[in-house]
Amino acid sequence: MSNVKFQEITGAITAPQGFLASGVFCDIKRLGTGKGSNKGPKRDLALIVSETPATVAGLFTTNQVCAAPVKVCVERMKRGKAQMVVVNSGNANACTGRQGLADARAMVACAEQTLGLSPGLALVGSTGRIGVTMPMAQVRAGIAAAANLLGGTAEHAAHAAEAIMTSDTKPKQVAIQFRLGGRTVRIGGMCKGAGMIQPGMSPTGARPATLPHGGLHATMLAFITTDAAVEAKVLQTALNEAVANSFNRITVDGDMSTNDTVLVLANGLAENKTFKPGSSEFKTFQAALSHVCLELAKKIVRDGEGVHRVVTVRVAGAKTIQDADLAARAVANSALVKTSWHGGDPNWGRIIDAIGYSAAKVVEEKIDIGYSAAGSKKILWSLRRGQPTKATFKALCQAVAPDEFELHIRLNLGKAEAVMYAADLTEEYVDFNKGDVGDPASLGG
Amino acid sequence: MSNVKFQEITGAITAPQGFLASGVFCDIKRLGTGKGSNKGPKRDLALIVSETPATVAGLFTTNQVCAAPVKVCVERMKRGKAQMVVVNSGNANACTGRQGLADARAMVACAEQTLGLSPGLALVGSTGRIGVTMPMAQVRAGIAAAANLLGGTAEHAAHAAEAIMTSDTKPKQVAIQFRLGGRTVRIGGMCKGAGMIQPGMSPTGARPATLPHGGLHATMLAFITTDAAVEAKVLQTALNEAVANSFNRITVDGDMSTNDTVLVLANGLAENKTFKPGSSEFKTFQAALSHVCLELAKKIVRDGEGVHRVVTVRVAGAKTIQDADLAARAVANSALVKTSWHGGDPNWGRIIDAIGYSAAKVVEEKIDIGYSAAGSKKILWSLRRGQPTKATFKALCQAVAPDEFELHIRLNLGKAEAVMYAADLTEEYVDFNKGDVGDPASLGG
Repeated sequence: MSNVKFQEITGAITAPQGFLASGVFCDIKRLGTGKGSNKGPKRDLALIVSETPATVAGLFTTNQVCAAPVKVCVERMKRGKAQMVVVNSGNANACTGRQGLADARAMVACAEQTLGLSPGLALVGSTGRIGVTMPMAQVRAGIAAAANLLGGTAEHAAHAAEAIMTSDTKPKQVAIQFRLGGRTVRIGGMCKGAGMIQPGMSPTGARPATLPHGGLHATMLAFITTDAAVEAKVLQTALNEAVANSFNRITVDGDMSTNDTVLVLANGLAENKTFKPGSSEFKTFQAALSHVCLELAKKIVRDGEGVHRVVTVRVAGAKTIQDADLAARAVANSALVKTSWHGGDPNWGRIIDAIGYSAAKVVEEKIDIGYSAAGSKKILWSLRRGQPTKATFKALCQAVAPDEFELHIRLNLGKAEAVMYAADLTEEYVDFNKGDVGDPASLGG
Repeated sequence: MSNVKFQEITGAITAPQGFLASGVFCDIKRLGTGKGSNKGPKRDLALIVSETPATVAGLFTTNQVCAAPVKVCVERMKRGKAQMVVVNSGNANACTGRQGLADARAMVACAEQTLGLSPGLALVGSTGRIGVTMPMAQVRAGIAAAANLLGGTAEHAAHAAEAIMTSDTKPKQVAIQFRLGGRTVRIGGMCKGAGMIQPGMSPTGARPATLPHGGLHATMLAFITTDAAVEAKVLQTALNEAVANSFNRITVDGDMSTNDTVLVLANGLAENKTFKPGSSEFKTFQAALSHVCLELAKKIVRDGEGVHRVVTVRVAGAKTIQDADLAARAVANSALVKTSWHGGDPNWGRIIDAIGYSAAKVVEEKIDIGYSAAGSKKILWSLRRGQPTKATFKALCQAVAPDEFELHIRLNLGKAEAVMYAADLTEEYVDFNKGDVGDPASLGG
């Protein structure tokens, strides 16, 4: 991976050839959401459109309570083709029963008709309040308005990125270009997150035994575009790997949403030759897609509700990957560990406590715990083989003082590793999520 | 159970015949702990002594990182006899390696010698800072002082209850008397909790497959005395059942401590005839012990760190007991659900989201969610079969406004049930646990 060179470029989802975007205000947010969403921008409906039909891959929440737009996307993944995505914020269209499913289907049908596409080529994403049916008159007006405003500039992409925000404080976008089979290829992406963030997504929304059940609710949504030519199955293989190491490795508050969705559309306009898994082209594309997903995932953690500090939790030396994952998630979701991060407190007692109560197999006398600066390999150990080191309290405090740092846990029982990108727990998170009582809009998620 | 009559009495752990107690200050707290513990009373060492050897039963944290005093107690449970317990606050004697184990052994030996007991009759409990060796000179002086002050009054019991507090804001005690086999029998108890509270205890500290791994760190400790005559094995059977429905059903913050301990000593001075499981006497004793444990457990939740609201989460209609438990714990530990409880927000969207991402088998279209006043069977349903009811937002807000209420979740898939006694998540919890940086005493748990 490290040999592949990506160049950061502007334009986000419109950076790849042949992709258009727009984002408009159509009054879903005001009708649908409470305090949280009203703090963000007012735009609440986005379109992403490819000039030509694209191959598509997706991953979806494994929450058993799953929103209507997720159900519609899962159905539509089977054909492996799509040409557009309609996304709204302000209403999650979750727990809305048959009406919700009918509304999600009406949204894609309306989008296809408005753009003059064949039926079946639109996908849909929603985020916002749970348990309220979609204001379909507004949605239809929004789709019409957004279709009129479609364009391929960075500003168009920015409007779309704004329109999917809920409690996010800033839009989250990225784009890169790189060489693939003698062609210049681009990948762009945008996402939203903020709270109810510990995704555990799978290609069908079904929960594999190995997939940890975790958490989101402002929901995480991510939309990725590329002009690479990639067959749908190959695209799905690459996306599975990319998401396993990015969106499925983040946690803000340990809650998994009903709406988590990642979609990637590949329209082939770069005219590279298609490739198979295992080829050097696949590896290059995989590395690029993984890079885009990880950059977007980290932006979600950094902009999580009330987040002050971001901590990369690295567990190594576990007997199995599942053990490594269980230990990392226990630490990354411990209320006591997260509050100590907020306080700048190098509290290894709470960390080893969480490791000990995780379902991972551990042996107290073998556990190492240490800190490094973000991206650095120079680790200051606070605990070796279960015993405190001679590191001073002052030095440990300095290690956990930056806005971002890495926590290193070595179980010394095997060779398996796992990483979680985690956030602290702050008074602002609590204040934000305790809601505005008296505001009926806060009834849902 | 409901037919058994208990009379509440005073005296707590000294209420049963032949039990003495004391609680002293011996400077462990000042040496060992940070901000949290210093807010409470200064007493930091307690003795509980029976005039005659007693049968004993215990349950201990299933955290794989387990403190030295827990290890010593587990060893000593095998003989089924004990005559005293020495407990300190201010230092958990956890993650202290060989020295810690030697110190815990020295504590029980010192206590036995000071009281003139045969070796092997003392047990030990510790709570407080992790990773610091015990100040043994202070401990020895404290045991000597406490031995001199032993007495059987309510005041003595209160001093002991104070001495085990850390971040607790009040001592937690209970005592009852009831008729058993023609005799009047008493059970008394005291406990401490506050944070790092989601115990999952077993008789040996080993984790049964069915026991949920949960969490504590101010640690929960509970000490129960009775003058009933009960064989050790029968006592353990009764305690297992009592703890399964009380201490192992509470959560403050989802963190399980390294030190969680429940001990019960039965000295037989009430001279009832011993009994076997299945007998009517056993059922009476079981009901009484369960009552004491549940009262103590609820006091821990009510006095949890920063807790404003206490919520009883009742899950019914699950396919299996494990499913019921998983769903109840997912809801009871969801950061978003807990902050909404704090805000007085009847946010069923977050509740159904947590149910959906739990590992329990659920079907969205079958889920009911409702509220009742504490102890009431009159439920206001907010969701039936996955769909919002016509209950008004105002009525739902009123249902979740009291300091205590019950949340009813029906999965409508089977007949299994589970309950969790849970707390809200508040800014005070975060503020309290983010610690005082610059105070080296906050390094541990």
